[in-house]
Amino acid sequence: MDLRDLFKNLDEYLNKEITICGWIRNHRDQKTFGFIDFSDGTCHEHLQVVYNNNLENFEQITKFSLGSAIEVTGTLVESEGTQDYELKATKVTLLGDCPGDYPLQAKGRPTREFLREIAYLRPRTNLFQAVFRVRSVAAYAIHKYFQDRGYVYAHTPLITTTDCEGSDQMFKVTTLDFNNLPKDKDGKVDMTKDLFSKQSYITGTGQLHGEAMAMAYKKIYTFGPTFRTEKSNTKTHANEFWMIEPEIAFCDLNGLMDIEEEMLKFVVKYVLDNCLGEIEFFDKFVEKGLKEKLTKLVNSEFVRISHHDVIDILKNADIKWEFAPDYGEDIAKEHEKYITEYFNGPVFITNWPKDIKAWYMKVNEDGETVAAVDLEVPGAGELMGGSQREENYKKLLQRMEEMGVDKEPVEWFCNLRKFGGCVHSGFGMGFERLLIYLTGVENIRDVIPFPRTPGNCEY
Amino acid sequence: MDLRDLFKNLDEYLNKEITICGWIRNHRDQKTFGFIDFSDGTCHEHLQVVYNNNLENFEQITKFSLGSAIEVTGTLVESEGTQDYELKATKVTLLGDCPGDYPLQAKGRPTREFLREIAYLRPRTNLFQAVFRVRSVAAYAIHKYFQDRGYVYAHTPLITTTDCEGSDQMFKVTTLDFNNLPKDKDGKVDMTKDLFSKQSYITGTGQLHGEAMAMAYKKIYTFGPTFRTEKSNTKTHANEFWMIEPEIAFCDLNGLMDIEEEMLKFVVKYVLDNCLGEIEFFDKFVEKGLKEKLTKLVNSEFVRISHHDVIDILKNADIKWEFAPDYGEDIAKEHEKYITEYFNGPVFITNWPKDIKAWYMKVNEDGETVAAVDLEVPGAGELMGGSQREENYKKLLQRMEEMGVDKEPVEWFCNLRKFGGCVHSGFGMGFERLLIYLTGVENIRDVIPFPRTPGNCEY
Repeated sequence: MDLRDLFKNLDEYLNKEITICGWIRNHRDQKTFGFIDFSDGTCHEHLQVVYNNNLENFEQITKFSLGSAIEVTGTLVESEGTQDYELKATKVTLLGDCPGDYPLQAKGRPTREFLREIAYLRPRTNLFQAVFRVRSVAAYAIHKYFQDRGYVYAHTPLITTTDCEGSDQMFKVTTLDFNNLPKDKDGKVDMTKDLFSKQSYITGTGQLHGEAMAMAYKKIYTFGPTFRTEKSNTKTHANEFWMIEPEIAFCDLNGLMDIEEEMLKFVVKYVLDNCLGEIEFFDKFVEKGLKEKLTKLVNSEFVRISHHDVIDILKNADIKWEFAPDYGEDIAKEHEKYITEYFNGPVFITNWPKDIKAWYMKVNEDGETVAAVDLEVPGAGELMGGSQREENYKKLLQRMEEMGVDKEPVEWFCNLRKFGGCVHSGFGMGFERLLIYLTGVENIRDVIPFPRTPGNCEY
Repeated sequence: MDLRDLFKNLDEYLNKEITICGWIRNHRDQKTFGFIDFSDGTCHEHLQVVYNNNLENFEQITKFSLGSAIEVTGTLVESEGTQDYELKATKVTLLGDCPGDYPLQAKGRPTREFLREIAYLRPRTNLFQAVFRVRSVAAYAIHKYFQDRGYVYAHTPLITTTDCEGSDQMFKVTTLDFNNLPKDKDGKVDMTKDLFSKQSYITGTGQLHGEAMAMAYKKIYTFGPTFRTEKSNTKTHANEFWMIEPEIAFCDLNGLMDIEEEMLKFVVKYVLDNCLGEIEFFDKFVEKGLKEKLTKLVNSEFVRISHHDVIDILKNADIKWEFAPDYGEDIAKEHEKYITEYFNGPVFITNWPKDIKAWYMKVNEDGETVAAVDLEVPGAGELMGGSQREENYKKLLQRMEEMGVDKEPVEWFCNLRKFGGCVHSGFGMGFERLLIYLTGVENIRDVIPFPRTPGNCEY
């Protein structure tokens, strides 16, 4: 049986015989008895296994090393003196041993940098086991939120020839042999010889295809891997990450904020309800006050304020900014931090200067701002970014021309405005950013099982 | 409100005023009244909107064309003479019109081939709307099955430098400029100049990384896009498709078959329960008997038989085979078909000749077969393929040497056997193959919203 089921139904199994398979996470043996810290990875909790020299292979058992796979049969009993439970073993069998050069020994606490070097083993540590379980549960919470509300999960393509982020930020994909590239008559590489008969990429967003789906299903979401070629070695950049991109027809910017707020609260609450052990572990060892921070978010009301009014607040603040706040500019990390502290909670910042935002966003009536919204969250910065989309065909084309966006590859996307177009809005949430917020773990490399960053693509 | 909610609570809304936004799927106007076939895409059902010349913009409404986005306010009433419901409009507003060159007109039935050319619009047709909604619901059912049972959803990397399928079947990924490739001193392309400092690929499987996760969490599953470079233009091949790859520690081949069978029945039942309208639609227009086929699967017990015994049956069959059955060979499509018809249901075929299977599969004690299993399903052929993995470090290395598999890139994978290794098993299910089975739609291009096949990477 799984420890997960055991810990959910302790009363049912008390004083009963059970058999479990898992791994030795720690081992202390005395002359006549021993304790095994046992985990099978199905839940945050470990179970203490107690064995004594009544067992015929007692001497052998005392030598079972940390990391070994074992099967234990025994009786679940209450521990003496505490409220905890332990397993009084009647049989302990070695299934797979683990040599002394196993990198995860009990002594010393390996650094996170070292653990990144052994990414294939680190899910066995308490920290990473908890992080990646929260990753799984949070992913499910996102699916559950949208599916319960009738959204269609849209599998937008990864390989693409169109992208709204610009192809200079995209990985090229090919089946051609780099050392034997076909050339055209001008001596350029002949991409018509590639599998798709043209240059293709792996995508940085599912938004364009998501909009096509929203024009059929009203409410859709994507949830899948996305890619950027950025050569940044920072705590928040990875070349491969997961994104959630909902898109909703007949929904304006206010409706979008309602959805963003409701979804985030749902997901955080779901994780609190289903990963309490993990959250308390992070609270203790990673970010003091994490549980309170998350609980507060669930019960807070998010502020909604325009970019213009945010700049007012920043200008009036009695602070010497590194970057001077400006009505026509983006806001810096220091500003984000100040604003979420100023309002003591999450803040939607709306109506951004059009020049710093994307071409597909709806220009407001003032002609200067777009109906975009960023959600700033205390301690995490920008968690989601969204906008109402330009639904007017002519205005969209005009804006593309102004901004030098090539129409040809996205003509089908523009056509969505011609054929029964309507007010619609969508947002993107970087899944890893959410996980950094949920776990307190600061580095994106530590919330992705096998992270890809410049120069790093092991495993 | 959404039609989905309306159709779930018809009694509640009967004779009440409601407002809905969606699209005109058909329109018939008479002199003094008109009917709009209205859909908002949130459910399979459409709603009939009735309007008459009491409305002040009656003349305008009669001109609203198919495909247009509209908002309707009205009272939900029972249709005269039938058990159905309709909306008696008090207000109909045009939100976005749709010109006469809209490719999806009511007259004539466009071919699936034509609809593939307008992949961004085809989710608006009854068929594709139903297919991609089933895709969404089936995806969720898969998540639900595994999450309810404590599996961890493992996000294995898409970009990788190791792969157990062989790099000749993988797309290369790069940030290098094809027309200006850096060269090393031997005149070869210098891959150390690429973003990851070496040649990287987009993956064909998450299995290797999944095994690492299973050795920490006991039970994991992956669910994400995978890629193959095959240049096949067949009904069942696409270059980008989605796979589910569960991996379970302390689980042998029999345990694996239990999981495969339970999961498949769960997913099929979930789709029957939640997409009955869609299934009945497919039953009527795509595959007669589909609903019965699916219901039967849920209630059947899957046969388990060895490859050897299957060959016996094939040899004894009074049939002139195109491909002669052979104990040492794979079985052909004609054999798959015969066997599922022979047993009149799904069949697990176990213990395959080792020479036709992968290097990581556990060799049975006979030294000739491996503990692999394929699930053959009536009408769909091979739906899942799995195996018990070789958990013995030395035997694995020996097998790799025999089969000429390079150890260096998968050394970490082999190490999983050294550090607390144990009996473990896993399988892969191609999600599109499941969808073909669930919908009766035969071509993989028609169950993927934006399919990628050789020469085809539009949108």
